[in-house]
Amino acid sequence: MIVRVINIYVKRGYEESFKDACRKNREGSVKESGILRFDVLEDSGNPLHFILYEVYKDEEATREHKNTNHYKAWREVVEPWMAKPRESVACNPVVPVDESDW
Amino acid sequence: MIVRVINIYVKRGYEESFKDACRKNREGSVKESGILRFDVLEDSGNPLHFILYEVYKDEEATREHKNTNHYKAWREVVEPWMAKPRESVACNPVVPVDESDW
Repeated sequence: MIVRVINIYVKRGYEESFKDACRKNREGSVKESGILRFDVLEDSGNPLHFILYEVYKDEEATREHKNTNHYKAWREVVEPWMAKPRESVACNPVVPVDESDW
Repeated sequence: MIVRVINIYVKRGYEESFKDACRKNREGSVKESGILRFDVLEDSGNPLHFILYEVYKDEEATREHKNTNHYKAWREVVEPWMAKPRESVACNPVVPVDESDW
């Protein structure tokens, strides 16, 4: 499994549009066979800060995701709304390690 | 639901001990009725960087967790291993919002 934890800061005024775009992206993403989780969070202390939590079966699944229409549409629409480039951390799970626990 | 995303940096040499302590803490945590997920991740690009992803039913559940023996034991043992104070971000889920999806 590969987990991507992505921190995104949006420009003021784009919070709701950003959430809508992420909901749409998630709708498509959870149908991908290589994606185990796809959570979208907002920082309760900063309405301009969001965290995406994406869990993939393997490296191949991360590449497949980037080729989907829902990902491409999301990236194109949200890119100009970001206050700075997003920060993505690729992680390995320490625990749980069993695929069924994700 | 309340999601806590916690970034922790440990001092060199304590990576494996830290992982063991987190595995133990998780064992107890997932048995708490107020905890929906408790993931421990290691940054694949930095072996000293870890992320905890903790999902609670509500504010009360976060307080209950801090009163458990497994949490107290974890905090006591890992505190001196941290290279700097941990950074915790409290989040609300944008999606999914249904408790059964966590």
